[in-house]
Amino acid sequence: MHEFDEDTMVTAVDPGVYAGTMSDRWSIGPVPNGGYVLAVGMAALRQALPKPDPVSITAHYLRPSRPGPVSVHVETVKVGRRYATAMARMAQQGRETVRALATYGTLGAGDGPSHIAGGPPPLPPRSALAPVRHDAGMTFGRRFELLSTTLDFEPGRATGPAEVSGWIRFADGRRPDVHALGLIADAFPPACFHVVAPGWVPTLELTVHIRARPSSAWLRCVFRTRFLFAGLLEEDGEIWDEDGTLVALSRQLAAVPR
Amino acid sequence: MHEFDEDTMVTAVDPGVYAGTMSDRWSIGPVPNGGYVLAVGMAALRQALPKPDPVSITAHYLRPSRPGPVSVHVETVKVGRRYATAMARMAQQGRETVRALATYGTLGAGDGPSHIAGGPPPLPPRSALAPVRHDAGMTFGRRFELLSTTLDFEPGRATGPAEVSGWIRFADGRRPDVHALGLIADAFPPACFHVVAPGWVPTLELTVHIRARPSSAWLRCVFRTRFLFAGLLEEDGEIWDEDGTLVALSRQLAAVPR
Repeated sequence: MHEFDEDTMVTAVDPGVYAGTMSDRWSIGPVPNGGYVLAVGMAALRQALPKPDPVSITAHYLRPSRPGPVSVHVETVKVGRRYATAMARMAQQGRETVRALATYGTLGAGDGPSHIAGGPPPLPPRSALAPVRHDAGMTFGRRFELLSTTLDFEPGRATGPAEVSGWIRFADGRRPDVHALGLIADAFPPACFHVVAPGWVPTLELTVHIRARPSSAWLRCVFRTRFLFAGLLEEDGEIWDEDGTLVALSRQLAAVPR
Repeated sequence: MHEFDEDTMVTAVDPGVYAGTMSDRWSIGPVPNGGYVLAVGMAALRQALPKPDPVSITAHYLRPSRPGPVSVHVETVKVGRRYATAMARMAQQGRETVRALATYGTLGAGDGPSHIAGGPPPLPPRSALAPVRHDAGMTFGRRFELLSTTLDFEPGRATGPAEVSGWIRFADGRRPDVHALGLIADAFPPACFHVVAPGWVPTLELTVHIRARPSSAWLRCVFRTRFLFAGLLEEDGEIWDEDGTLVALSRQLAAVPR
């Protein structure tokens, strides 16, 4: 079993109630990464809902998660012909950590017109890139292979753009599916590190639109922050597969590091 | 009292339960506009939460609303020092119409660095623009004064960009505040009408990040759709005030008109 599947496994313990364990393998310092936390919530939603693909999911982060037991309470809000919507409450030690709202459906089921204004980020070929080295204190980085030329942060000196891009895949070769895209959407170092000194960037809210099932192990990503002011920033992400299909759009609202 | 305030008024009828009336003055055909529906939900959240400003709000639209009575059930999820998070359930005639998740806070309370990559959309001065005329079947259009050069849709012939922009203000002169920005985020005709034949564009999910309190009656807006395929599209919006401050970023996921 791959690391991602092992560490997002949840078990139904009551109708709508799932139990799992937050692993310490996806942490930034002592805190499990927000995308990983979301992936555990999505593992419960996936079991609870009768539609195969997450289409839109929003998580509000209430407090940091910790490695250890976690419960996910899923309330199915509506099951329609095309979509199913649910709310998830994640809790650890009796305190709610994340509240999420999600709509699931069937991707690729829609026909009709298409209009694509944009393409994958221009990246050097993977053979030209050296893997990004990981900070020893971050178990999270070991879960991925990350190839990028935009992660040499020179805080204070950089004037922008606040943008990071690169190739990413799971280090153990697991192929990314729709259930992993919430994690991928939060897997790069913050783009804002190009314009502010690196520090803790707590996510208040993360929304991911999943648009297609990824076809490749490697994904091409770009994340940008355009508006950092008054203590808040957004980070917009695009995730593309190797066939040139946009598989997810993400946006998060986070606090500027102090 | 201004139209917006009259038509979003809700009354607490029980702890966490608010009653209001969906007006028929904000409709596209027979259906109240999604941004207006959100504004009614936000009127309840505003009463329920001890923080003054919506910061991030996401609504999942479960079924069309109708003019008539509406209830809003607010569950306060967490009240922290800086932020308060709540969930809202809107229902009409015993059926849930919208589920929303919101975090409120105090805008402008954060200091620190700022990095702005972008500016208000380049628009002609208002004096050079004629007001956009409204389709007779849409009461919604009468609530606003809209000045734009990008709303002459030539469906089928246009090749993009799928972008609309313009000046907007309330027709009755009400000044827009943070509580009106969810409405403004859904107040322009869909940008996708530049690349597909106009039709019903049902919103699945709308997220609005409110970043500042607007300083002016007129707001400058731009909305873009970059990825329309497999039956779904996103529409990204920026709302700026006359002082050149970004007051809101929005993104919605909607179905492509058939």
